[in-house]
Amino acid sequence: MNSARRTGDIAHFASEVRSGHRAALARAITLIESRRADHQASARALVQDLLPETGRAIRVGITGSPGVGKSTTIDALGMYLIEQGHKVAVLAVDPSSARTGGSILGDKTRMARLSAEPDAFIRPSPSSGTLGGVAAKTREAMLLCEAAGFDVVLVETVGIGQSETAVCDMTDFFLALMLPGAGDELQGIKKGLVELADMIAINKADGDNIKRANLAAGEYRAALHILTPRSPNWQPPVKTYSAMTGTGIAELWQAILDHRAATTPSGEFDARRREQQVKWMWTLLEDRWKAKLRSDPAIRAKVKSTEAAVAEGSITPTLGADRVAELIG
Amino acid sequence: MNSARRTGDIAHFASEVRSGHRAALARAITLIESRRADHQASARALVQDLLPETGRAIRVGITGSPGVGKSTTIDALGMYLIEQGHKVAVLAVDPSSARTGGSILGDKTRMARLSAEPDAFIRPSPSSGTLGGVAAKTREAMLLCEAAGFDVVLVETVGIGQSETAVCDMTDFFLALMLPGAGDELQGIKKGLVELADMIAINKADGDNIKRANLAAGEYRAALHILTPRSPNWQPPVKTYSAMTGTGIAELWQAILDHRAATTPSGEFDARRREQQVKWMWTLLEDRWKAKLRSDPAIRAKVKSTEAAVAEGSITPTLGADRVAELIG
Repeated sequence: MNSARRTGDIAHFASEVRSGHRAALARAITLIESRRADHQASARALVQDLLPETGRAIRVGITGSPGVGKSTTIDALGMYLIEQGHKVAVLAVDPSSARTGGSILGDKTRMARLSAEPDAFIRPSPSSGTLGGVAAKTREAMLLCEAAGFDVVLVETVGIGQSETAVCDMTDFFLALMLPGAGDELQGIKKGLVELADMIAINKADGDNIKRANLAAGEYRAALHILTPRSPNWQPPVKTYSAMTGTGIAELWQAILDHRAATTPSGEFDARRREQQVKWMWTLLEDRWKAKLRSDPAIRAKVKSTEAAVAEGSITPTLGADRVAELIG
Repeated sequence: MNSARRTGDIAHFASEVRSGHRAALARAITLIESRRADHQASARALVQDLLPETGRAIRVGITGSPGVGKSTTIDALGMYLIEQGHKVAVLAVDPSSARTGGSILGDKTRMARLSAEPDAFIRPSPSSGTLGGVAAKTREAMLLCEAAGFDVVLVETVGIGQSETAVCDMTDFFLALMLPGAGDELQGIKKGLVELADMIAINKADGDNIKRANLAAGEYRAALHILTPRSPNWQPPVKTYSAMTGTGIAELWQAILDHRAATTPSGEFDARRREQQVKWMWTLLEDRWKAKLRSDPAIRAKVKSTEAAVAEGSITPTLGADRVAELIG
């Protein structure tokens, strides 16, 4: 394939994605996820071509421990949004999927209603190894979904390691799902999560659980009240809902819209996106630079032994940095 | 000065520091803070020479907003420790000192009693510009203080930007100071701080304030209770004390010892230090790599314009990373 032909192909491919052709969107994401150098070059050209059509969706990150009901919540929220006339894309960042071979979104039957909807697009997490790699590919997939006309993108994560930070760094609103409980049963909020969450939502507020859910909400609210909010324009609320009955789903979406309305006039909403883009660029640069150190087995071994010497305190970190810097040249 | 002469000088200088000679310690820290290339080379050799004598102190980071009474707290805690037979070094990380020309520890009269003690050593924050630079120099100063026989190192920070993370990353125990208050008056805990703090201590629990301090402690305790602790071996406590009367100062120190006792058997205490060392090495490497991009004005300008293009969304972060990577070669 010569260069001119490839450029023509990319333009055609881009127009298919733009027209909202789901199979083309799926193929475009597969191209992004490919490790082949020629595919990666094409993927870059494709994303750059589609860039003017991106950025129009509301991007929502959703986290929660296993068992909290993430899939049923996304199914219920997605169906509500489609009823409201939205087109909904669901993506995931699951760095463990490379190890387990599975993915939190691998089983579409977990979102039974949404997966049957023509206005929904569900894609499991890429499984490319490192969190950085997984997050970068999900971020580009998000841009493609926007170019394909999806105006709400939901990005799910299980919250392993730094994956919550990665998802928060690519979304406009970060939603943490919790389960009800009372007293000693009360689920702890992971400390890192408090810094990231724009809202805490307590699922399974139905039937006998309603009272417990309200009690838990009160306790979480009291805890959050003592923390200084990240934004001067937004105090993260605590809501209860039921993914099973649908109660409170509309209110979750309303809070996401309220957040956008509250942070837009001051420019905070746009600033968050601009900062995310620049941070992403630097993360990519650091990843490449570290990949250099991993690519050669001899260099990798020397880095490991230098790290060990620094860890045990036989050389200073400064001397260790000198030695590693010499390896890169 | 030839190389052999310099090596002999370094060995002599190191032995002076080792003997606990305060003027030598002060000169050694000045050497570390110098930007001259020959001084930096000598400083590296000096720290490496002294490395076997380092690591024996308990390292405590202390943060708090202006007005919370950090200086009086350090004065009271330092005097208590000296009475117990300890030798106490006080350092600071204040990235604003480069801009203002001042330093949070610049005025020794703020620690009136401690600064007159022969068993105390107080050193203001280095003022070398970036937070990374300030933190690196404070960290090396800490190693020198340990080599000079100081067995408690207190590192103060005002908590501007990422300086709290930097201090937490160089200490064994991170203490957050707060003021009493009740209801709406209650001071918020900065979100990032919740993740870092190993203890919250409420100052000015004296006279009419005692009741308010206890109320505030109860509210902070309830808030922290809902958060999952960082360590499986330590639930960060909330204490009240008065730097003015000295009430509760002994209990603060006891909590620091309890933390060490609680985290040592599992190896967590040592693991934290090992991770800090390795993280420091990587931070130094990243700083150097970024310094390359800042050193040439033409390159710096191109990085800026690439960042701007990525921020406004006219090129993808991936393309931006390509362009910056080309600049470094």
